[in-house]
Amino acid sequence: MTHQKGQNAHTYSQHSGLSLSFPSIRSKILYSKTSPLRFIKRERKKEGDRSRGGKGEMLTSTVVNAYPLSSYTFGTKEPKMEKDTSVADRLARMKVNYMKEGMRTSVEAILLVQEHNHPHILLLQIGNTFCKLPGGRLKPGENEIEGLKRKLSSKLAASSGPLQPNWQIGECVAIWWRPNFETIMYPYCPPHITKPKECKKLYLVHLSEREYFAVPKNLKLLAVPLFELYDNVQRYGPVISTIPQQLSRFQFNMVNS
Amino acid sequence: MTHQKGQNAHTYSQHSGLSLSFPSIRSKILYSKTSPLRFIKRERKKEGDRSRGGKGEMLTSTVVNAYPLSSYTFGTKEPKMEKDTSVADRLARMKVNYMKEGMRTSVEAILLVQEHNHPHILLLQIGNTFCKLPGGRLKPGENEIEGLKRKLSSKLAASSGPLQPNWQIGECVAIWWRPNFETIMYPYCPPHITKPKECKKLYLVHLSEREYFAVPKNLKLLAVPLFELYDNVQRYGPVISTIPQQLSRFQFNMVNS
Repeated sequence: MTHQKGQNAHTYSQHSGLSLSFPSIRSKILYSKTSPLRFIKRERKKEGDRSRGGKGEMLTSTVVNAYPLSSYTFGTKEPKMEKDTSVADRLARMKVNYMKEGMRTSVEAILLVQEHNHPHILLLQIGNTFCKLPGGRLKPGENEIEGLKRKLSSKLAASSGPLQPNWQIGECVAIWWRPNFETIMYPYCPPHITKPKECKKLYLVHLSEREYFAVPKNLKLLAVPLFELYDNVQRYGPVISTIPQQLSRFQFNMVNS
Repeated sequence: MTHQKGQNAHTYSQHSGLSLSFPSIRSKILYSKTSPLRFIKRERKKEGDRSRGGKGEMLTSTVVNAYPLSSYTFGTKEPKMEKDTSVADRLARMKVNYMKEGMRTSVEAILLVQEHNHPHILLLQIGNTFCKLPGGRLKPGENEIEGLKRKLSSKLAASSGPLQPNWQIGECVAIWWRPNFETIMYPYCPPHITKPKECKKLYLVHLSEREYFAVPKNLKLLAVPLFELYDNVQRYGPVISTIPQQLSRFQFNMVNS
């Protein structure tokens, strides 16, 4: 690799009613404690080579619009605490749930924005190091698309009011399998594993040109460029660090405001 | 990782007119110097949720049939020598071609088979270590699908006769960019690179149930399981080692003979 990874020099700046912090030129932490809600104009997408996804439907296209980060407004809401305080707790709870409900299915979203015409992905940061994609576990029997919309609203939408995003769920870009009650996952179900413990699906989510995101107060929302994620398994783990490879087949339409 | 990578204990065995060698339980080297051509019954695919790709057309489906390795027959043909004898030569030739023809576009194929109900990918091995996907550089202005069929026939089909595979080119699963005349490639065009030197596209190719492959005598054809490729950048490089992640979204239909 020709560039250094994971630099996080936090520098804060205030700009147009939206708190932005620049951990480096690479990633931006996006949150706001007091940002006045700006008027959100819902973009009317033109019907074209992409079919509009209705309730429970998917929007599939290999052309993906990436709007500038400055199109979006960020506020905060009440904290969403993690259910577990340690990895051991999490795996123990997973085991209990598996006994009750069988294999866990989780769904996560890849939300794209652009800065300097390079795609960035929105990640939620817990504490100072751990990053995750917005999403979570489906209820038993829940539809994947509907479940992902529910999870996205729970993690990133205002608790009430008119500014609810109209989540447009796109293609499934990756599926990861957890063979045992352990942290390790694989992008295939390993041979001789007949009862995997979790199946995690990553979906591309098509953002509208303008959205209002409400970030739980205990989390930070980061816009991380693909070139920071790529080849950076140490910082982002195997699932998030290979998102650039999984998105490589898409054509990004960089929209400038 | 819980398992060890890159074990290559070569053990040869002779079986049903087809020379197979087992470098380990993980990968199989497939070639034959004298295998009699077996009768190849062309499978008539049923029209279903997948559209049949015609000349220059793609076959797109997230359900992919993987037939057992034993369905295929392997023979040899005249050597296909590499155009360059060193990496430095290769980069120098790339530079000369760039001056004449502009950015190089190359297309490569992911050919899937199954063994023990686990997907394997066919790779061409040059010498004892270097592996590559079958494919190559397009002629200026050449259609990608047609160009990939031409390259696949050149690398893997009999030079003449009735046993020509009907290559069914599927989805593009990854695109890699070479920003400079260097070996390093990225799964995105890096910011500030306005004139990338190469664009490499990986396509899934749907094999029929029975095919005859003719392998150039200076190369070996290997069937490498996904679990051997995964997390193994040291042996297979960044492009091939992330194929498992790029294929994870597909549903493999493991066909048993």
